Amino acid sequence: MRVADIAPRTLLGPGPSDTHPRVLEAMARPTIGYLDPQLFALLDDIQDMLRAVFKTSNELTLAVSGTGMAGMETCLANLLEPGDRLLVGVAGFFGQRLVQVAQRLGAEVCTVEVPWGEVISGEQMRQALQKQGPVKLVAVVNGETSTGAWQPIPGIAEEAHAAGAMLLVDAVTTLGGVPVLVDEWGIDACYSGSQKCLSCPPGLSPVTFGPAARAAMARRKRPVSSFYLDMALLGRYWGRERQYHHTIPVNMIYALHEALVLVLQEGLEARWARHLAQHQALKSGVEALGLRLTANPAHLLPSLNVVATPEGVDEGSIRQRLLEDEGIEIGGGLGALKGKAWRIGLMGEGARPEKVQRLLAALGALLGG
Amino acid sequence: MRVADIAPRTLLGPGPSDTHPRVLEAMARPTIGYLDPQLFALLDDIQDMLRAVFKTSNELTLAVSGTGMAGMETCLANLLEPGDRLLVGVAGFFGQRLVQVAQRLGAEVCTVEVPWGEVISGEQMRQALQKQGPVKLVAVVNGETSTGAWQPIPGIAEEAHAAGAMLLVDAVTTLGGVPVLVDEWGIDACYSGSQKCLSCPPGLSPVTFGPAARAAMARRKRPVSSFYLDMALLGRYWGRERQYHHTIPVNMIYALHEALVLVLQEGLEARWARHLAQHQALKSGVEALGLRLTANPAHLLPSLNVVATPEGVDEGSIRQRLLEDEGIEIGGGLGALKGKAWRIGLMGEGARPEKVQRLLAALGALLGG
Repeated sequence: MRVADIAPRTLLGPGPSDTHPRVLEAMARPTIGYLDPQLFALLDDIQDMLRAVFKTSNELTLAVSGTGMAGMETCLANLLEPGDRLLVGVAGFFGQRLVQVAQRLGAEVCTVEVPWGEVISGEQMRQALQKQGPVKLVAVVNGETSTGAWQPIPGIAEEAHAAGAMLLVDAVTTLGGVPVLVDEWGIDACYSGSQKCLSCPPGLSPVTFGPAARAAMARRKRPVSSFYLDMALLGRYWGRERQYHHTIPVNMIYALHEALVLVLQEGLEARWARHLAQHQALKSGVEALGLRLTANPAHLLPSLNVVATPEGVDEGSIRQRLLEDEGIEIGGGLGALKGKAWRIGLMGEGARPEKVQRLLAALGALLGG
Repeated sequence: MRVADIAPRTLLGPGPSDTHPRVLEAMARPTIGYLDPQLFALLDDIQDMLRAVFKTSNELTLAVSGTGMAGMETCLANLLEPGDRLLVGVAGFFGQRLVQVAQRLGAEVCTVEVPWGEVISGEQMRQALQKQGPVKLVAVVNGETSTGAWQPIPGIAEEAHAAGAMLLVDAVTTLGGVPVLVDEWGIDACYSGSQKCLSCPPGLSPVTFGPAARAAMARRKRPVSSFYLDMALLGRYWGRERQYHHTIPVNMIYALHEALVLVLQEGLEARWARHLAQHQALKSGVEALGLRLTANPAHLLPSLNVVATPEGVDEGSIRQRLLEDEGIEIGGGLGALKGKAWRIGLMGEGARPEKVQRLLAALGALLGG
């Protein structure tokens, strides 16, 4: 197999999303060095643009040199020390993963759990915080990619802060597609991925840390177990010191830069509206085919739609025919929904009317045939 | 600043090296999904090609989704548990970094140290092992990028194994440029970076683990602290299981695939000879300018040449003029050599006669002027 022979796809799965040609073109510019003043200019721009996209004035805002999973681990590893207590809102696969990652780091983890497809209410969070006693950090997933449920943040932030805890939010599937208002909502730390609603290839993870998170990191008794993901060191490379830490993925930086330029040229409000409109079009379309979305109807995530596979239909073979015959990728169910649902991502360049209509037509033909 | 406006450079520093146009072109192909059968074909190819480049039959050979630093951390985090004993050969900055990374992971670290520019002899290693008592792992840097010294491996491997320890080798600056014979030399685990002698952009780290290393990982009492870098999980995604772990950096995978195709089309022996010949040309050229390489003359690393800055010459301003006037990047001294030396990398596409001659001409003009 040669890369040049790869058949292009239309990516409507759980990510990566389709990459804009301008982003691909940017990525293919010749590599420069990690201390080149031209690269520093790009890094400064990226920090400014990420602040705009995260809706924050947090100085410590940058992109970690790994995927969204590395961003999750960066936040947990920097905010928690072994023995620190963490309360995770678990409403699906990625809530469970927060638990796994934090446990490996030696944190003492407790959870508040709701059924897959539901979201956690402020009241449920309040009761869990009362029951569990003091925790250092509360973590929730804003857009649960395994269920398609859209977790509201402000009520959770209020309860976490009332209990003296910081709030960490997973915005992997939401940043750039729906509102993520870090400062207004009182989010203390937040991570995302480059390859979802930002429509950049996977490989970088935007993160941001507010004043309380920075103070907690400054008070650490022992260094972060991961040198690679240590925010103090990363901050000294991305910040004014320009101190060598690792050789940053230069061409991925090109890609993220151009992707963020595209996001801000479109405008966040317009982008959010586009994602919402395409979600509504998809929802109407699948309902017209007699299908239904599985998440709580009051909390449907625009960027990721979980559709129940009808009785008697083989989930995997429909997905395979979409990929092989139509070149359209959608995802299969994850965890509790394996074999029972499709996951349709409408993220960034995927949230386009012509793509939604093509998918609906193809899905209709396959199910009707 | 826009990415399209970036002035291209000739990269003759400590990495990244110049990327071949075919690699840039491959990287700009449309993104596909992380479970796409086409991607699996590329991953299988990459594993085969990495085995060829590492000269190993190790099944567990893949590319970690991070830079060379992530590869270093992956090896240490997977091979060591808190309290395990590690002996590091320290002959420069990257030996010191092995110590720092391992200490953060909770390992008990001892060192055998030699002056910067020197290498560690088998005899020195034997004595250190005797003095320190049993260790689980010995780690050395094959090409010390901070000094330009070329550490021989076979004698070290022999002593490590005689003492019942495994051997970990940092091949970041050597893989693909000089012989790295994992199986023949008895290396138990080895990591590299995509952006040096393989001439791929930074962002992936090839790693390989032999039977003893795999057995040690299988015997672990507790999981690896990093979920993102856990080889057991990574092996289940790269291997037959194809189990989701993280969204792999797809376009970087394209780049590494094409870079490895280029390496093997040239042939490893031809590539090693080219690196050696260009190193010799550079050495003759700088000596003709009255300059000298700082590392032990018996152990000069072809891919990275540390040249002493002459008395009375400002290291940084020469480097800046090379970059700004000539578009040539070289590196400054690191650690103990800061301000006192230049680091000239001849790696992959950088190890070309015309580039070496251009650098020598420019350096001669600047020093003579």
